Amino acid sequence: MISTSERSARLDQAQAVVASQELVAMLITPGSSLSYLVGYNAVALERLTCLIVPGDDVSPTLVVPTLERPAALASGVADLGISIIDWQETDNPYELIAKLLPSDGAIAVDDHMWAEQVLRLRDAMPGLEQVLAGGIVNELRVRKSTAELDALRQAGAAIDRVHAQMGQWLRVGRTEREVARDIGDAILSQGHERVDFVIVASGPNGASPHHEVSDRVIEVGDVIVVDIGGTTPEGYCSDSTRVYAMGNVDPAFARDYGTLMQAQEAAFVSATVGVSAESVDQAARDVLTSAGLGEFFIHRTGHGIGMSTHEDPYIVSGNQTRLQPGMAFSIEPGFYVAGKWGARLEDIVVMTPTGCERVNNQPRDLVIL
Amino acid sequence: MISTSERSARLDQAQAVVASQELVAMLITPGSSLSYLVGYNAVALERLTCLIVPGDDVSPTLVVPTLERPAALASGVADLGISIIDWQETDNPYELIAKLLPSDGAIAVDDHMWAEQVLRLRDAMPGLEQVLAGGIVNELRVRKSTAELDALRQAGAAIDRVHAQMGQWLRVGRTEREVARDIGDAILSQGHERVDFVIVASGPNGASPHHEVSDRVIEVGDVIVVDIGGTTPEGYCSDSTRVYAMGNVDPAFARDYGTLMQAQEAAFVSATVGVSAESVDQAARDVLTSAGLGEFFIHRTGHGIGMSTHEDPYIVSGNQTRLQPGMAFSIEPGFYVAGKWGARLEDIVVMTPTGCERVNNQPRDLVIL
Repeated sequence: MISTSERSARLDQAQAVVASQELVAMLITPGSSLSYLVGYNAVALERLTCLIVPGDDVSPTLVVPTLERPAALASGVADLGISIIDWQETDNPYELIAKLLPSDGAIAVDDHMWAEQVLRLRDAMPGLEQVLAGGIVNELRVRKSTAELDALRQAGAAIDRVHAQMGQWLRVGRTEREVARDIGDAILSQGHERVDFVIVASGPNGASPHHEVSDRVIEVGDVIVVDIGGTTPEGYCSDSTRVYAMGNVDPAFARDYGTLMQAQEAAFVSATVGVSAESVDQAARDVLTSAGLGEFFIHRTGHGIGMSTHEDPYIVSGNQTRLQPGMAFSIEPGFYVAGKWGARLEDIVVMTPTGCERVNNQPRDLVIL
Repeated sequence: MISTSERSARLDQAQAVVASQELVAMLITPGSSLSYLVGYNAVALERLTCLIVPGDDVSPTLVVPTLERPAALASGVADLGISIIDWQETDNPYELIAKLLPSDGAIAVDDHMWAEQVLRLRDAMPGLEQVLAGGIVNELRVRKSTAELDALRQAGAAIDRVHAQMGQWLRVGRTEREVARDIGDAILSQGHERVDFVIVASGPNGASPHHEVSDRVIEVGDVIVVDIGGTTPEGYCSDSTRVYAMGNVDPAFARDYGTLMQAQEAAFVSATVGVSAESVDQAARDVLTSAGLGEFFIHRTGHGIGMSTHEDPYIVSGNQTRLQPGMAFSIEPGFYVAGKWGARLEDIVVMTPTGCERVNNQPRDLVIL
């Protein structure tokens, strides 16, 4: 459970960085950074909701449409010393914000703020240079507290319980979509508040890493990539991929899948405190490349995870970020052969002072159903 | 069903406007405008996917991460004459786009493009003035074809079938969250591909218009606002609100609810071809204000709907847009009394040459369970 004092500390740290960078303020719109900083899980809509985070000697202000005021209050933002200003349907919230801020300097905007809002803020405050807030917020979010790592462990256990039941749903003759429906129900009943994604990629569909679902009917001999995730009531995300086979599989696939398991394990073993993110990518890639599968591993090895499914640190060539305790990310090498099949094996790991720990612990072997 | 030729015509129209406004191009990122223009339902992620829509003598280009290429191809964009350029994990897609475009002039960016992408594009193409693409795309989207209005009628009938079953789920002793789970299942089983939102606001929670769900247990005498919607496989949205009562209700509430029904009907009757959007808002507001409820009606009367739940035309004071055949929007007045209760009555309507037609047809009376 994330305490109010922990959330309050996050906000304090953000305000200190805003001050040290001599920014006018940081503007955060609905999304995972707003949830992270103040615990308000607002939906991104066309009516502007915006948290103004000034330097450290001024209290933050939450600007909300009048109809969202009760929801904002219910989220407990007032407990963090944040004042709420609401605007009516016919007010211009951009001008309202402009009046609250100095007219020159630099302002940081939420990385996921909509262009509509970015450009309207620019027009309302033409003297302010806009920069991205990601550098500030992500730096906080990437180093997770003990409570956050526990929340990710719980999310991992929750999605493991869904994978554990897969044999009940994956059956020859059913469509990917039917199976996905059952998985979605189970994601909710097993400790998540929201289903984020359900990929059921059977047979040749497995060759598209971000295939979601289709009406393809599962056949005997299919290999099926199941990549699923959701968000827990605490706001932390799960994400795990396993590969299932409907009866006997092609020996060539089984061999390559064995290589994939080795690649995933090699990346896991390489992920120690102080090594670079890119070296973990390289560890997985080396195993697949040595086996002649390098050209079929068409994506990075992983992504950070926390209050959003994809965040820092990205486990990708070129990212020299050093792994530190408190980081959490996926290790998910794969291979994709157009027209034939695909495979991906994914665990979320968390870094602690003693090393790297998997939060997903379902068997990693090919699951023959 | 939206045909390829209809989609192709949308793209042609967009390109003609880009040319007439002498824009370098329009850049569309994943979301409803991308779905609308080319039928590619991509998920917004940190890896840039971007449709470049140039003026009308050049073919559009879809820039995608390599791992999304199979999904982009499967969506059929090649049938629209769009070429696909993919980028590898270590490439810089912003520089890639900069190389494809002239270095000065004005460029329109998707209204929902993330700030991260807006600012990186700005840095990669400092000579291009960024403007919003909404003025171009929304002008097309707001005038819906016969096929689109049919799709909205089907979505309306689908959500009506969910409301029709509400008595099975809304029971004294159950929590809002439990009821919402059942509703979510039914939204999927009744012809939607995605659940967009489920608001079950019981008793005093009804006073927060955007309350979603909580663990509050439903009690005898509660009034419950149920506002639900999803997206059909064709990509069109439903959205309808009804109010349910657990047994006898306070006579004061029943009286005010009667006024609300009158307000909703007055707005519906006023919505004829050629009148302004704001006049429809006023029609509902006048009825509530006359009955002393004006101060409790804290939001606009409605929003357009189509491939997104909220889009043009907004039914709000100040919007002088004239209603035209092909427009579709909600009519949803409400009243909200803090600490006591709330109510909202919402139908989606479509404008045809002969007038305004409701696509939601469940009884509008207070439903006593």
